[in-house]
Amino acid sequence: MSKIIDLTAPMFEGAPTMPMDPKMSLTWHCSVETLGYNLSRLTTSTHKGTHMDAARHFLNNGECIDEVSLDRCVVRAVKADLTAKKPGDPINPADLAPYEKYIAQGAAVLLHTGWDKKFPEMSFFSGFPYVSKELADWFVEKKIGMVGMDMPTPNGTDWKYVHIKMLGAGILIVEGLAEMERLPQNMLFTFYSLPLKLQERDGSPIRAIAILD
Amino acid sequence: MSKIIDLTAPMFEGAPTMPMDPKMSLTWHCSVETLGYNLSRLTTSTHKGTHMDAARHFLNNGECIDEVSLDRCVVRAVKADLTAKKPGDPINPADLAPYEKYIAQGAAVLLHTGWDKKFPEMSFFSGFPYVSKELADWFVEKKIGMVGMDMPTPNGTDWKYVHIKMLGAGILIVEGLAEMERLPQNMLFTFYSLPLKLQERDGSPIRAIAILD
Repeated sequence: MSKIIDLTAPMFEGAPTMPMDPKMSLTWHCSVETLGYNLSRLTTSTHKGTHMDAARHFLNNGECIDEVSLDRCVVRAVKADLTAKKPGDPINPADLAPYEKYIAQGAAVLLHTGWDKKFPEMSFFSGFPYVSKELADWFVEKKIGMVGMDMPTPNGTDWKYVHIKMLGAGILIVEGLAEMERLPQNMLFTFYSLPLKLQERDGSPIRAIAILD
Repeated sequence: MSKIIDLTAPMFEGAPTMPMDPKMSLTWHCSVETLGYNLSRLTTSTHKGTHMDAARHFLNNGECIDEVSLDRCVVRAVKADLTAKKPGDPINPADLAPYEKYIAQGAAVLLHTGWDKKFPEMSFFSGFPYVSKELADWFVEKKIGMVGMDMPTPNGTDWKYVHIKMLGAGILIVEGLAEMERLPQNMLFTFYSLPLKLQERDGSPIRAIAILD
C-alpha cells in the first residue's frame, strides 16, 4: 500500500499574501438555511500558497499553465535537506551536491528549508533562505524539470533573473510547499502537483502530494 | 511508462455557471509591463466546473473538504459507459450491472454520459441524464467510496435526496468531469481528484486525471 504525504499549506479567509498580490477571500455564498446547501466563493491570486508557476508568469510568449503537459506534473522527486540554512542564507550548487546522483536520474528537486513554519505570519514573505543565481544556472545546466520549495518564492532580490532563467529553460517552479519534514531522506518518491485548468494563465494554486512506493 | 489522461473542463473568464452560483472571473492583476510579471486573480464557486463535493456541501455537521483523507482521493476506478442515455433519462442500478464486478473490488465509478460536450452552453446545466434515487441508494448499499460524472450535478430534481444520501454515507462526489471517452472500457485505472486545501469548506475545483498502469 502506498503512503500519501500532503505537502500543501491551507487556504482560508484573509490568509496573508505577498503585499502586491490580490487579497485572499473565502466566504459563504449560501447555506443549508438559505438555499438548501452550503457553497463558498473563493477569490485568490493564481500564485497563492502552494502553487505552480508556468513560464507565462514572467515570459509573455511562455507556456501557459493549461499548456503544461501533465507528465511534467507527476514526476520522480528527491528532497534536499536545507534545514541548516539560516534566514537570508543563499542556497548554492554545493548545497545540492549530496543529491546529485538523484538529479542525474532526472528527478525534480524539492528544497526543504523549514521556512513554511513562519506561515501565516507576514514574516513568511521576506528574509528566507534563497535560490542563488548560481543555483538557478546550475539547475538549468542539469536540465532538471521541476524545482519545488517551502519558501514563498525562490529569491526576493534577484527574483527576475532566477525566475526567467529557470522558467525560460522549461523548469516548472512550485512554491509555498509545506511540511516537507514528513518526506523521507535520500530516496526518490513520486510528486504530484496538478494545476487547475486555468485557460491561458500564468500559474495555479495546487494540492501538492508525494506518494511513497 | 504510465499514461496520464486529463478529465478536467477548462476554467476561464466568464465561464457559465449554475444560475444561482457565484460568477466565475479570471482576470489579469498585473503584467510584465506593469510590475515585471504576469499574475491573475481568480474568483470561483467552490463547485465550479470539474470539482469535488465534501459532505459539508449538504450537511452542516459533515466532513469539510480539507478533512477528506487523501487516500480517498487517489483511488482505483472504473468507467461506466452510459453514452446511450438520452437527455433527461434516469441512470438506474440496472445500468451499472455490467460494472458490478469492478465495484465489488472497491472501485470508484465514473459515469460517462458524454454530457460534457454541451459545455460551455447554458444547456449543459439542465436536462442531463441523471442519477436516480434508486441508484443513489444502490451506491450506498455497495459501500462505494466515490462517484464521478460528466454532468454538472447528479440530479436536477431530487438533488437534495441524492446528495444527502450519498454524502451522508461517506461517498465523495466528483462532478463536471470531461472527455471520459479517452478512458478505457472494462478495466480499472487510478483516478486522482485532489481538492485544494480550503479550510472548513464544502468543496473545491480540482484537476482530475486518470493514470493507466
